[in-house]
Amino acid sequence: MAASAPIRKTIYLGSFVHSVTLADLEICEKGAIGVDEQGVIRFVEKNTSPKETLQKHPEWKDAHTIHVSDGFFFPGFIDTHTHAPQHPNTGLFGKTTLLDWLETYTFPLEASFSDTKKASRIYENFVSRTLSHGTTTAAYFATRHVEATNLLADICLARGQRALVGRVCMDRLSPEYYRDESIEAAVRDSRACIEYARSIDERGEIVRPIVTPRFAPSCTAPCLKELGTLAKETDAFIQTHVSENTSECDLVREWFPESESYTHVYDDASLLTPKTILAHAIHLSDKERKLVRDRGSKISHCPASNTALTSGCCPVRELLNEGITIGLGTDVSGGFSPSILEEARHAIWTSRFVAMASPEAAAATLNNAAKLSTAEALYLATRGGAAVVGLEDKVGGFDVGKEFDAQMIRLGRVPEEGDKEGLFGEEGAGGPVDVFGFESLEEKVEKWVYSGDDRNCAAVWVRGRLVHNNARYKA
Amino acid sequence: MAASAPIRKTIYLGSFVHSVTLADLEICEKGAIGVDEQGVIRFVEKNTSPKETLQKHPEWKDAHTIHVSDGFFFPGFIDTHTHAPQHPNTGLFGKTTLLDWLETYTFPLEASFSDTKKASRIYENFVSRTLSHGTTTAAYFATRHVEATNLLADICLARGQRALVGRVCMDRLSPEYYRDESIEAAVRDSRACIEYARSIDERGEIVRPIVTPRFAPSCTAPCLKELGTLAKETDAFIQTHVSENTSECDLVREWFPESESYTHVYDDASLLTPKTILAHAIHLSDKERKLVRDRGSKISHCPASNTALTSGCCPVRELLNEGITIGLGTDVSGGFSPSILEEARHAIWTSRFVAMASPEAAAATLNNAAKLSTAEALYLATRGGAAVVGLEDKVGGFDVGKEFDAQMIRLGRVPEEGDKEGLFGEEGAGGPVDVFGFESLEEKVEKWVYSGDDRNCAAVWVRGRLVHNNARYKA
Repeated sequence: MAASAPIRKTIYLGSFVHSVTLADLEICEKGAIGVDEQGVIRFVEKNTSPKETLQKHPEWKDAHTIHVSDGFFFPGFIDTHTHAPQHPNTGLFGKTTLLDWLETYTFPLEASFSDTKKASRIYENFVSRTLSHGTTTAAYFATRHVEATNLLADICLARGQRALVGRVCMDRLSPEYYRDESIEAAVRDSRACIEYARSIDERGEIVRPIVTPRFAPSCTAPCLKELGTLAKETDAFIQTHVSENTSECDLVREWFPESESYTHVYDDASLLTPKTILAHAIHLSDKERKLVRDRGSKISHCPASNTALTSGCCPVRELLNEGITIGLGTDVSGGFSPSILEEARHAIWTSRFVAMASPEAAAATLNNAAKLSTAEALYLATRGGAAVVGLEDKVGGFDVGKEFDAQMIRLGRVPEEGDKEGLFGEEGAGGPVDVFGFESLEEKVEKWVYSGDDRNCAAVWVRGRLVHNNARYKA
Repeated sequence: MAASAPIRKTIYLGSFVHSVTLADLEICEKGAIGVDEQGVIRFVEKNTSPKETLQKHPEWKDAHTIHVSDGFFFPGFIDTHTHAPQHPNTGLFGKTTLLDWLETYTFPLEASFSDTKKASRIYENFVSRTLSHGTTTAAYFATRHVEATNLLADICLARGQRALVGRVCMDRLSPEYYRDESIEAAVRDSRACIEYARSIDERGEIVRPIVTPRFAPSCTAPCLKELGTLAKETDAFIQTHVSENTSECDLVREWFPESESYTHVYDDASLLTPKTILAHAIHLSDKERKLVRDRGSKISHCPASNTALTSGCCPVRELLNEGITIGLGTDVSGGFSPSILEEARHAIWTSRFVAMASPEAAAATLNNAAKLSTAEALYLATRGGAAVVGLEDKVGGFDVGKEFDAQMIRLGRVPEEGDKEGLFGEEGAGGPVDVFGFESLEEKVEKWVYSGDDRNCAAVWVRGRLVHNNARYKA
């Protein structure tokens, strides 16, 4: 499974499913995807057979083949916002909201990453988890520790998971034991992590650095400005949080009286660029949305976290209609799941709550336009996310010229005789989805979206290289 | 695993967790629960050791013992509202809402249960599924077919899952191919199912019948009246739906002009009794709530379904505050999961959306009183549900004199060295919850609630009899 292992020219045979546009999910029953030794998709055939495929592509006759018979290939998921060090706190939030949650749960745990042995255990585990859920690319917040942050970059590279790895900067708000001691130190340490990531993966094929001010309340205006300069100098991506919680918004208004809005705080520090990922963006004004759009910055929608911390419902359909680029983020551990599939479900639920909470609630329940469809949620999870992390030309769908980042989804089938002695003749074979045999492929996709989990993710590839397989797929 | 197999006097050792009141979850680290040959709890010891337990209860020295070391015992879940025949449609709903969903997905599938071989396959599978998620009691809607309904009762009895099994009545709305041909036929067939359930389980220890008018729009007023009479004559439980969707409410107002409200339609037919389970109850007026309370009828809260079908958010905290008895229902396949644990999560999410949608939304996000706590959701899933199905004296918690309906929850632990080669040294051992070792038992319970699934449900007992075990627990 090492990321550096050579790969064979391979034809992936069977059904495949991917988003073509926001609204259109292409569902192809009998497909063939040819992937070369560099992991690049060289052909995509639809309504074909293995024989026809080879007739059309005779030079692939010695290629390795991988079939999926009880499921389909799907593009790898892209997690545009998550906090790897918070993984051990997953599910721990009680009734807290953002600011007391940070104080109670988050800062003490993150601070402990000065211990690299602990960091290693948690990061190895989290990368295993996200890969097992089909996440082929993740934008990670690490901690403020250079050594542990570099360790996360090493682990992603070794495991072959595409990652943006960010050392978190903060020169106020957090407790003294977990704060950059000066702006200079924040910039110096961030630069060290940028240089390290580029030293281990020069062309940024798997791992790239990302400048990461935690969020405005954690950084003074001069600190933000210096980080803006650093991002420009190093031509790096930027990630931060914006407008997650109304108390946080109040705080920003109070602490940045010179800025026109929360979003303007970042713009004033040259942190709002086409390479900027803004997490949450729930309570933005029209003017702020326009600013985000004008700057070409991207939004990471994190509905599970927003619900868990009672932050609010991001009106994602409106933002999409306005032309803003959006992906999904698990936001562990504000979010309670490392799965982008779960996040896609929550994006759908949140869009329904937005519809139900509108002044014309009764009408809205019948207003399909207000709801995110299954296809749209899957788009956000793949092509939308790819555009957020600047990989829209490389991943997100099965197009010739793109790299093969994919999952094999297997669904199993309920035995004809039922399950008289418990589930699954072949142990654990079925996973959580029950397929009875009457379902169209489209319906199987719906079943997977609404009741599937990591058990259905049999294997995961990044650039054509196998990076994860579960017990149901022997590589 | 047969429900009739004899059982041994057994002491369950290790941690246990159960609700004491709505707000109080008791978490006991070192417990011992003694269960006799009838499956009745004879003692519950806290802060004890196996040795101390036997010193106190010397007559149990030859008892069988079952330890849980990496988790805890928890009461079996109670699903107060679900549709077993709709299981194959789980996850299929698209953007439909109640009335078009019934037409598109539900009626055609239910109608096919005239085929008992098909019914058997689906019912066996669904009972396997619900047991695997720790559901020890379920209130099932079947179909209008006597034979298939009786088959479901047989399966529940054979598998040892407590069930209320209801033949569905409807003399209008549904298509002609799936409708009772007359009121007399509806009553006659319902009576046949009541008599059958009582013939196979005379004292109703595992299986009980339940009178099941689908919902007011499906039944004429005279039909409802006859079913009210039947329920009274046979002293049976009653289940139906109320006020799920605003279009449905409009229809009821139009079709029952003589009744004061939707809830009064049932009251006018003598269907509102202390043995009545009303599913959904989202859009009730104050007067209707008072009527429900005055009649002592119970409510099944089905938040996952209500979100999936955009039906609305039941204000469950208000209903609880008013003293109405409430349990949780998966409402498959309006709901997209057979798991009451998933449903408990959705009850929490829905309560947060209710808080966020209130006119004082900003304040509400900080208003903890508006949110359902983890403890409260677990209460609804166990003791609340027990009271809804009339078993509050028998199950729902670990009290002396109650019967032992329980799940063994196992959580595993992340290896010290992390997961360098993928998840889980021992295959699948960890399930979806990552325990690092720092967690209190209280935090482990939180992790289970927010990220656990059926993989954590290692074994399930009903009346002290093992009715399910997964690969992690060898009986």
